[in-house]
Amino acid sequence: MDQIRIIEVSPRDGLQNEKVPVPTSAKVSLIASLREAKLEEIEVSSFVSPKWVPQLGDVSELWRLLPEGGLYSALVPNARGYENAKALGVSRISVFTAASSAFTLKNINMTVAESLEGFRPILKEHEGFKRAYVSTIFECPYAGRIEPAAVAKLAEELIEMGADEISLGDTIGVGTPSEVTQLHESIRHLDAQRIVWHFHDTRGTAIANVAKALELGYRSFDASAGGLGGCPYAKGAGGNLATEDLVYFAHREGLTTGVDLLKLSQATLPIFEILSRPPTAKVQLAALAEWRSSQESAQQ
Amino acid sequence: MDQIRIIEVSPRDGLQNEKVPVPTSAKVSLIASLREAKLEEIEVSSFVSPKWVPQLGDVSELWRLLPEGGLYSALVPNARGYENAKALGVSRISVFTAASSAFTLKNINMTVAESLEGFRPILKEHEGFKRAYVSTIFECPYAGRIEPAAVAKLAEELIEMGADEISLGDTIGVGTPSEVTQLHESIRHLDAQRIVWHFHDTRGTAIANVAKALELGYRSFDASAGGLGGCPYAKGAGGNLATEDLVYFAHREGLTTGVDLLKLSQATLPIFEILSRPPTAKVQLAALAEWRSSQESAQQ
Repeated sequence: MDQIRIIEVSPRDGLQNEKVPVPTSAKVSLIASLREAKLEEIEVSSFVSPKWVPQLGDVSELWRLLPEGGLYSALVPNARGYENAKALGVSRISVFTAASSAFTLKNINMTVAESLEGFRPILKEHEGFKRAYVSTIFECPYAGRIEPAAVAKLAEELIEMGADEISLGDTIGVGTPSEVTQLHESIRHLDAQRIVWHFHDTRGTAIANVAKALELGYRSFDASAGGLGGCPYAKGAGGNLATEDLVYFAHREGLTTGVDLLKLSQATLPIFEILSRPPTAKVQLAALAEWRSSQESAQQ
Repeated sequence: MDQIRIIEVSPRDGLQNEKVPVPTSAKVSLIASLREAKLEEIEVSSFVSPKWVPQLGDVSELWRLLPEGGLYSALVPNARGYENAKALGVSRISVFTAASSAFTLKNINMTVAESLEGFRPILKEHEGFKRAYVSTIFECPYAGRIEPAAVAKLAEELIEMGADEISLGDTIGVGTPSEVTQLHESIRHLDAQRIVWHFHDTRGTAIANVAKALELGYRSFDASAGGLGGCPYAKGAGGNLATEDLVYFAHREGLTTGVDLLKLSQATLPIFEILSRPPTAKVQLAALAEWRSSQESAQQ
């Protein structure tokens, strides 16, 4: 059977913009639950300054408490973050840029070119697995539509610089399948195994984009359990593609993921309790409703 | 430009299972707002017994108060309902069945064959526009997967009986694009203009299914503003495809709908106030957030 690869980003991308502090122990539990649901690749945090992202300020402590096994990665936004990661023996790292300088200037206070220069030495030095995020692949909330050729050029440059894979992000969740196709046309000379699609479901188009990417031969997708997270820099934004929605879709389309959908749907419940809001991811709600209903039937 | 046709079902399908009574005046306002957003085809209610669906018990009063113009339709579940509709001069009617007798037995207390016999004389007598709903096209919550050939046979029979169009409903919102393709293979000998897809977004797959149906040449879709409604007979179900999500998707894919997305996103707000819950349709929330943000900028 055809297998897809899921990179789970809820502990980092999902939590980074949540105002309510999530205790380190709850993050460890979340990661353990995600692992029990059979997610192997998990981006667990970011070696970012706690001044900028207090929620992820416990990254070093968290890293030491991670459950055994698992392909854990962490974001390293700069040289200092990389030094901290290195000191802990972090093998899989991610760096972050975007297809629009208007976006990176607001987001990380530098142009795209400056961001590349910033992590060139990191990608050169690091011997483990290296991922590069490219945000705003279809549209920037400040600069409008993005040319597919510009994304392709950036992806090429990042691979040349040593990135093992590129995560292409529709950061504000505006794209539709024809845009996936257009970008594919510009990047089809690259190795498809190096490309990971990172869709947001802000406007309900994420699964349609996944469907198109699958048709075009891609098999790697970022997703966030419970649909946690999104992009705080984009007006009205919100909603990473929920891992539950991706898993359901893949299974129903005859693809394997290895993931246990019910365990996955339950994994984020303690986090939603801490955040004092109910889960909203569609497949998660459906799976939980079906489970509760089956529990009730069993008791009757 | 390529145009799609939207049949708006929120006043009937969207409200029928809401427990909180919605006053007739609020329904009239909703329909007027939908018309202002440039939706022309609207299913406004059902000539069902108020004993069964109290929420739609005001259908005769509502029908007399409808705004001028518009292609309004109403569901007629049986001969008595049809008599009432005829007395009011209702020109566009809908009848309802499913691809699974297990479903119709729970839902309307008769087998599929019995339901057909029930509305055969109605379809024969009626001279106006006739729509037939076929529910559970992919899967029945009680009987499991449905054979595409069974749906095709039923659609053929309904067309032979005089139906002008068939609304094919994924009632519990489980289907994915490969199922759309499989069903298409079974119904491709029918006139595509007579086929309307009615997707539910219970598991986030509705827009992916729309994308596939568009690729296959279909251009007609049911949708419900604000994502109101769903199916009460299916465990854990909920979530008609939101008209906002459909309109956004169509526009971004270069298709025209004629619909004003902001006006549409605002149309159901008074209804959500009556129901005491916030809107949750994704594109609706995004459109409202963008609008509020633009209003704030304008005031600064």
